[in-house]
Amino acid sequence: MADHPFQIKPSIVSMRTRNPIRAIVDNLKVKPNPEKEFISLALGDPTTFGNFKLHESCLDAVKSQLESYKANGYPPSIGTEQARAAVAQAYTHPQAPLTSADVILASGCSDALNLCIGALANEGQNILLPAPGFSLYETLASSKGIECRFYDLQPHRSWEIDLNHLETLVDENTAAILVNNPSNPCGSVYSKQHLLDILAVAEKHRLPIISDEIYADMAFTGHEFLPISTLTTTVPILTTGGLAKKYLVPGWRVGWVLVHDRNGALEQIRKGLINLSQLILGPNSLVQAALPDILQAPKSFYEQTMEQLERNANISEKLLTGIPGLRPVFPQGAMYLMVEIDTSRFKNINDDLDFVEKLAEEESVLCLPGKCFRCRGNFIRIVFTPPVEKLDIAYSRIRSFCERHLASS
Amino acid sequence: MADHPFQIKPSIVSMRTRNPIRAIVDNLKVKPNPEKEFISLALGDPTTFGNFKLHESCLDAVKSQLESYKANGYPPSIGTEQARAAVAQAYTHPQAPLTSADVILASGCSDALNLCIGALANEGQNILLPAPGFSLYETLASSKGIECRFYDLQPHRSWEIDLNHLETLVDENTAAILVNNPSNPCGSVYSKQHLLDILAVAEKHRLPIISDEIYADMAFTGHEFLPISTLTTTVPILTTGGLAKKYLVPGWRVGWVLVHDRNGALEQIRKGLINLSQLILGPNSLVQAALPDILQAPKSFYEQTMEQLERNANISEKLLTGIPGLRPVFPQGAMYLMVEIDTSRFKNINDDLDFVEKLAEEESVLCLPGKCFRCRGNFIRIVFTPPVEKLDIAYSRIRSFCERHLASS
Repeated sequence: MADHPFQIKPSIVSMRTRNPIRAIVDNLKVKPNPEKEFISLALGDPTTFGNFKLHESCLDAVKSQLESYKANGYPPSIGTEQARAAVAQAYTHPQAPLTSADVILASGCSDALNLCIGALANEGQNILLPAPGFSLYETLASSKGIECRFYDLQPHRSWEIDLNHLETLVDENTAAILVNNPSNPCGSVYSKQHLLDILAVAEKHRLPIISDEIYADMAFTGHEFLPISTLTTTVPILTTGGLAKKYLVPGWRVGWVLVHDRNGALEQIRKGLINLSQLILGPNSLVQAALPDILQAPKSFYEQTMEQLERNANISEKLLTGIPGLRPVFPQGAMYLMVEIDTSRFKNINDDLDFVEKLAEEESVLCLPGKCFRCRGNFIRIVFTPPVEKLDIAYSRIRSFCERHLASS
Repeated sequence: MADHPFQIKPSIVSMRTRNPIRAIVDNLKVKPNPEKEFISLALGDPTTFGNFKLHESCLDAVKSQLESYKANGYPPSIGTEQARAAVAQAYTHPQAPLTSADVILASGCSDALNLCIGALANEGQNILLPAPGFSLYETLASSKGIECRFYDLQPHRSWEIDLNHLETLVDENTAAILVNNPSNPCGSVYSKQHLLDILAVAEKHRLPIISDEIYADMAFTGHEFLPISTLTTTVPILTTGGLAKKYLVPGWRVGWVLVHDRNGALEQIRKGLINLSQLILGPNSLVQAALPDILQAPKSFYEQTMEQLERNANISEKLLTGIPGLRPVFPQGAMYLMVEIDTSRFKNINDDLDFVEKLAEEESVLCLPGKCFRCRGNFIRIVFTPPVEKLDIAYSRIRSFCERHLASS
């Protein structure tokens, strides 16, 4: 390369576009134990094991569009009117009404988040992100030269936001607060009061909220998911969502932005979102055409998914409780839970990375370390979507692992 | 808005992201004549009229992936190994060999172009674009703050690049030359000699080429499409392509970048492309899984599409020849032709915009003015994919229109 006649340098943007998970995972020394079947509790994709499947009606909806030969052409860059109207109808609320004009389709929730961050913030501004939080937020913001400021979530208060800490991060260059509820990686579902408290901070500092609700409606018994947009009439909110998790088709890449304008506060942002949507033109046309039918999937499908997820959450809770050195934070929704590692209890576990490496090497069970999510302290994230039999085995191996590594007291 | 407590300003990037076509089309006063059926020759989407259809084998390939329930999860951000290997196999050439590692899948050719421009150029640098050319190039580059410099295509030399003009645009801030062959909006297919001449300029100035070959293989009798990458062993080339046109599924949003590295010249660019692919994660998983089968569609399907396109091109050639005041530039491939308007022959046609507006108002036939593509002089672009019966009517109305508006000589 040094001697190459073409000295072609990559752009600054492409070099600063990095997913922090990759840097950590690529450096993890994960050599699974060849004697034991490998079980991954690491990947946030409910479709991996075949136990969570999309509903047949959603399959049929796409098939019928395919067979019509009428859904292969270019949709408008913001999505077809019918698809946007269907999303508006599915997510409208008396306190936060939506029409098709408030919906912009995107190529997955990633693209929806990319549009929102891109429309709200300039290079050199900053955005407030949860820690621990989904690492793509940082990838998207850093790619644009937007500074990421991380506000703490409090593990011992059900991962609620430390709002005092959040307020210390706000300055005149803050463009938005990103809130993720229900949360990846925490599995938390915020109460109405906590959401109101978040809104009060946004109101005080006149900041718009990007509310990542890709796990919308995925709350367990005793917890209720409330869209934050329904709890304010004044704070401007861009809500992102998609089919990925609730409809069990993350690979389909269908996401959306819901523009909760408040008397025109987001009028220019809406234009910006529409402008940005022209860069890549949104999701696949077949799935767009099928979207009105997909969103009509029977309620029983969603209920069954949630029952299955909650059963897995309960099993995780039961089997991880009482393992020496571990403190699981019980999930309230979504499909994740975080487990705190008390390294002082172990004879030779330095931190979360070390725990993950040794667990994989000895027990062939893979989790992601909390550092992948910028989590303070030592945590591992567990994805509890694998089949119950696999969870059983995995948790029993984690128990053996912890008992084996326990320091003599 | 002015009095709104939340003063939320849109980002600079979102405001500079514009498709120049929109500014022109939105200001066009197009009021079709209600007495006549509206016929659009404006939209570059071959699926609009139902006469160009994807092959049944492609439909079956997606259907079978859908029914397998195995292609709904997240693919890697650059695309699955199988899909990338299939693209590499379909486009490899002894002079420009490709493996799966040289292929990055994207959400349509738009996204592929976005990745290439984003990886090669920084804000403040410049990129050389064809005029007339596909307006998205400008949208993508301006969005990133990259200066667009337009090199002339020569209508009376089959739209070959004016290479002398192109060279005058090169300076130390030039990041790449974008070449589009076969061309939208020109319908030109470059000869081997012209491609070699382009490569010589790139070589001389040590510039990489982005070769937009979304119309690859779509050449008419007497013209041969040659991938520019196969004619050099030294100039680094990023080729963009996709399923949209050859497979007649533009709405499916499946595109790709082919990295034609030359001894490591593009090694860093490849990393940059991979980094950028993480922002939105590529095309729909069903179509990715079906891609190996789709690319095996029978040769007869492609031949029939090309026969039909060429018949339409010939009909266009025949019916537009001899219309007073018009000088069609006959197409060599793709699905477009440009027609020069000699305004001096008409009594009241000021320019291409005026021609388009009056034609729509009087004859309910819509074309796009050359200004949409930054074409110098007065041209209209005709998309000749509508059914022959519609082309017949449209061209006969264009003839009447021109005869009616002719200046008395």
